[in-house]
Amino acid sequence: MNELMKKITDFRDERGWSAYHNEKDLAVSILIEASELLENFQWKTSEEAVSDSFQNIKEEMADVLIYLMQLADRMNIDLEEEACKKLEKNAVKYPIDRGLRGE
Amino acid sequence: MNELMKKITDFRDERGWSAYHNEKDLAVSILIEASELLENFQWKTSEEAVSDSFQNIKEEMADVLIYLMQLADRMNIDLEEEACKKLEKNAVKYPIDRGLRGE
Amino acid sequence: MNELMKKITDFRDERGWSAYHNEKDLAVSILIEASELLENFQWKTSEEAVSDSFQNIKEEMADVLIYLMQLADRMNIDLEEEACKKLEKNAVKYPIDRGLRGE
Amino acid sequence: MNELMKKITDFRDERGWSAYHNEKDLAVSILIEASELLENFQWKTSEEAVSDSFQNIKEEMADVLIYLMQLADRMNIDLEEEACKKLEKNAVKYPIDRGLRGE
Repeated sequence: MNELMKKITDFRDERGWSAYHNEKDLAVSILIEASELLENFQWKTSEEAVSDSFQNIKEEMADVLIYLMQLADRMNIDLEEEACKKLEKNAVKYPIDRGLRGE
Repeated sequence: MNELMKKITDFRDERGWSAYHNEKDLAVSILIEASELLENFQWKTSEEAVSDSFQNIKEEMADVLIYLMQLADRMNIDLEEEACKKLEKNAVKYPIDRGLRGE
Repeated sequence: MNELMKKITDFRDERGWSAYHNEKDLAVSILIEASELLENFQWKTSEEAVSDSFQNIKEEMADVLIYLMQLADRMNIDLEEEACKKLEKNAVKYPIDRGLRGE
Repeated sequence: MNELMKKITDFRDERGWSAYHNEKDLAVSILIEASELLENFQWKTSEEAVSDSFQNIKEEMADVLIYLMQLADRMNIDLEEEACKKLEKNAVKYPIDRGLRGE
């Protein structure tokens, strides 16, 4: 993930976009891309959406990740580490013998 | 990212949750977590939100990443590769000499 | 609001779109329009966004309302009545003498 | 809708909350409530969600409407009028003889 982070921050810095970035607007951006991802599924089943819009789905997922990593960079957060910690927290909330739908 | 993906899929499979997963609901889940992330910034400036809710912000960012990776796994998508391709596409749309706000 | 509801349901029925409508996708649609509304404010202050995109903001607000009313119609819900009930519930949660930010 | 608007603005003014309101955060709030509405449908079919969470669905729809009307009030927008105009615009985009899924 470090290589990707470097590409993302280089892209941003080559264009001087860091000046515009703030945490709130980066969170807004993540949301907007997540909505554009979901839009591929509007009025459709999963199968129909994946069949019709596979390319766009991949691009919107990429957009969500790119903004998420820019927010992580700005806040000095190690995303992979936080994800591991969250999985450990979830493992306590949802022990293996208790089968629950969802998270 | 491969190590993290294994932890995520192990977590899911130890609980048999793959049976509930479908692409549309995973996209819905990404959106919901992105909204919970944004909620930390509601009525606040970036500074206030980061100061008040740093821990929760990190957790919601982790949640977005975890669902994003579960969707990538289900669709056989290489997230980092798609992010690189998207950066290349953006580089054409926003050449370095053209300073534009945003993406 | 009854006159507007009739226009909305007539529009939908003249095109036979009721066949596609289900509560989950109507909720997805409300979300997507709310995100398009928010997009007007991405990277901008309230003043800049209202100045730059007043027309689009009005249209996205209209879209949110139209889908909200279609969901209300489908679920046989009286939106104005539910809003009044929610205000009463909020009034108990936030009594007048207790000054709280937000909801 | 005028009676409801008066109740909403009275509620806000009795608590002095107008001071916190700005268009961007009101748009963020609409989004957050729309996401809480959608959350009722996560991992479920429309039927399951309506059966399990009818009360909460009604409350989140009310929350979306309340924030939407507060934004309309702040921007001096006539929501019902804008919805009518949007329907007219949609009628041109989707003439009756052309059957299209969605909007």
